[in-house]
Amino acid sequence: MLKLVVVVKFKEGIDDPEGKSITHSLNLLGFENVKRVNVAKQYEIFVDADISKGREIGEKIVKKLLVNPVIHDYELRVEEI
Amino acid sequence: MLKLVVVVKFKEGIDDPEGKSITHSLNLLGFENVKRVNVAKQYEIFVDADISKGREIGEKIVKKLLVNPVIHDYELRVEEI
Repeated sequence: MLKLVVVVKFKEGIDDPEGKSITHSLNLLGFENVKRVNVAKQYEIFVDADISKGREIGEKIVKKLLVNPVIHDYELRVEEI
Repeated sequence: MLKLVVVVKFKEGIDDPEGKSITHSLNLLGFENVKRVNVAKQYEIFVDADISKGREIGEKIVKKLLVNPVIHDYELRVEEI
């Protein structure tokens, strides 16, 4: 069994309204030294496959469903479990 | 400057409808060997503070705004940048 861990973030320069909102809220709550918050999504995908195929399957899944390449960057880790 | 990285996931046993929906979609798209998907949020919080205070600040932020302890677990990493 493989665990594919995919982290999908906004590209540099793309607006992150949730991150801005959290930054603002934290400043109001007394955390004035918080300068920026970036929000990303993490997917743990459990796949019944051989480790040698892990990265290939992960890349396909990411491109097919999880990432919009215009606005997102991603990281992919493959772990055998 | 510190970067606090917080990953917020659902506790074991708590329903993750987005993860279920992605699993179902991937199965329909031909990835029949995908067994489960867990969805989590990752926050990168940039704080102007000393490394010795990093974990304390991170724990406070997490409890104040980012996590509902009834349904969420979290991981916190503190990095100096």
